[in-house]
Amino acid sequence: MTLTRQAVVLRQRPVGAPRAEDFELVDQTLPALADGQVLTRTIWLSIDPYMRGRLSDAKSYATPVPIGGVITGETVGEVVASADARLAVGDIVVGPNGWASHVVSEAKHLVKLDRHGPPLSTYLGVLGMPGTTAYSGMTDIGRAKAGETVVISAASGAVGSVAGQIAKRAGARVVGVAGGAEKCLFVQETLGFDECVDHRVLDLRAALEQACPNGIDVYFENVGGDLQQAVFPMLNAFGRMIMCGMVAEYNDTKLRPGPNLMRVVRNRLHIEGLIVSDKPERFAEWRALARPWVMEGSLKYREDVIEGLENAPAALMGILGGRNFGKLLVRVGADP
Amino acid sequence: MTLTRQAVVLRQRPVGAPRAEDFELVDQTLPALADGQVLTRTIWLSIDPYMRGRLSDAKSYATPVPIGGVITGETVGEVVASADARLAVGDIVVGPNGWASHVVSEAKHLVKLDRHGPPLSTYLGVLGMPGTTAYSGMTDIGRAKAGETVVISAASGAVGSVAGQIAKRAGARVVGVAGGAEKCLFVQETLGFDECVDHRVLDLRAALEQACPNGIDVYFENVGGDLQQAVFPMLNAFGRMIMCGMVAEYNDTKLRPGPNLMRVVRNRLHIEGLIVSDKPERFAEWRALARPWVMEGSLKYREDVIEGLENAPAALMGILGGRNFGKLLVRVGADP
Repeated sequence: MTLTRQAVVLRQRPVGAPRAEDFELVDQTLPALADGQVLTRTIWLSIDPYMRGRLSDAKSYATPVPIGGVITGETVGEVVASADARLAVGDIVVGPNGWASHVVSEAKHLVKLDRHGPPLSTYLGVLGMPGTTAYSGMTDIGRAKAGETVVISAASGAVGSVAGQIAKRAGARVVGVAGGAEKCLFVQETLGFDECVDHRVLDLRAALEQACPNGIDVYFENVGGDLQQAVFPMLNAFGRMIMCGMVAEYNDTKLRPGPNLMRVVRNRLHIEGLIVSDKPERFAEWRALARPWVMEGSLKYREDVIEGLENAPAALMGILGGRNFGKLLVRVGADP
Repeated sequence: MTLTRQAVVLRQRPVGAPRAEDFELVDQTLPALADGQVLTRTIWLSIDPYMRGRLSDAKSYATPVPIGGVITGETVGEVVASADARLAVGDIVVGPNGWASHVVSEAKHLVKLDRHGPPLSTYLGVLGMPGTTAYSGMTDIGRAKAGETVVISAASGAVGSVAGQIAKRAGARVVGVAGGAEKCLFVQETLGFDECVDHRVLDLRAALEQACPNGIDVYFENVGGDLQQAVFPMLNAFGRMIMCGMVAEYNDTKLRPGPNLMRVVRNRLHIEGLIVSDKPERFAEWRALARPWVMEGSLKYREDVIEGLENAPAALMGILGGRNFGKLLVRVGADP
């Protein structure tokens, strides 16, 4: 019996913003299971800004997706055939299975989930890679203290929404930055941040100064661009800058100038890059810590769901332009 | 009896590079000693790049020198009158006494030195603030390991020369950057760095790449400007950047653009500012550690001595232009 699947592959490397013709939805034949492997059908596919980097062949921390290769991505799926004792048919798993309807992968790379706990999609968002990124950033670099001012960029997004709520739990004054009134309302009313600045205002610096009268002690950087330039001169002595992403610049074909670093000397700033896969121990730690908060409803999140694997490329183009609202997911298959 | 002294005061705030007319050598009357104070005659005055910052009224970590005020600076001096039990006439002390021939200051701000140990001037250089800065930078931020590549800017200077020797002791490959063949020869032959790049070459980036075939793991930043732009894209994954100073930009009247920070995310760089006065415990720690190395001659240093307090302004103008060679000192008075 031959099994076929649908997958989204990279047709050509995007120059600047990715376009539909850079991707292709194809049918592929699945290989037979080897020992240690399982066949999974995908339920949820996570769409994250980091994926833009994998489409380029510029030197980076991770191998790029090859031309014709399936795009990288985390999924939640259901095991439909197993050649490994650790996983049985019907098990629900999360792992780096990529943009495909069905995947044959090594069982050891998948984490089995509790079907009766939080919604399965949360393992791609608030309890998954983005939530763990927020947790690691605030724990390993930000270390916000009571009374400090913390600014969170992309505050309504999967990482920012969690980072800000962690800072609130630490007693900090938390100011979000998001695009548009609707997102800002969500950041203040639902997530409970103290303020939210709309980055579309005419004078971003003035808006930030009004929201942060005592300057900025911690900045969670997801965005880069003009926002970074506005925040940088407001960083206080001993300020920390968690460098998680710069999505506003991912489609650039040429590096923009950055902020002058004299302020790093004078104000003894600490600027540090964060790729959460460097800290694998943080994943289980965060799931254990945050699972009860998600179950009881005290850790808020919002999901933005796109239907159908064929729409994954458009979803990625959207997140790079800030057009999602909350954790962006593609529903690939039915719930178990 | 009225005592007078000579002092160099700030006549006006420099715009750009300081000029002779920004300073004034004046005679001043010394106050009588109050309880807890001592009168010191200055032997050595240290000249350091940070002093440029104190001449501006831009917001900074330290209070600026007021117009008409004596310029800030560390000195070694001899106590000539004492109203404090801790210090006696004839004691040799180091402390922040400023640009003056004689100073009345609080005894508690001065540290008594051993007359029969290393040369007194070393307490302003290799064993003093610059040496401690190098030690703190390599200990608290750089943490160079055996086999790593460490680049030291201003490598023949008071801070750089010590920082590189510490990295050598840790087993790292150490590449200095200095201005001109004479300084480079000193850095390689006397200080024992593995290589030295002359920053006056036509293609600085190419020279750095030749000297650092495996990229750069630790960069000790004293200089900024073009050198920083050349080093930044060579920083390896998990690279550290010790932000100690940016002397090439201290006379700028407008901030230059800095490096794009995308590399901080992708390579998980750690960039941190260092002002050694934040870490007072490091001073005694470094003196205790390095004193035997200075006595036995295994920790090398070079001094550049200018004669006479009246030449202190020219000395400062020189260090800002990189015209000193080694730790810059002004001899203000005779040895005890």
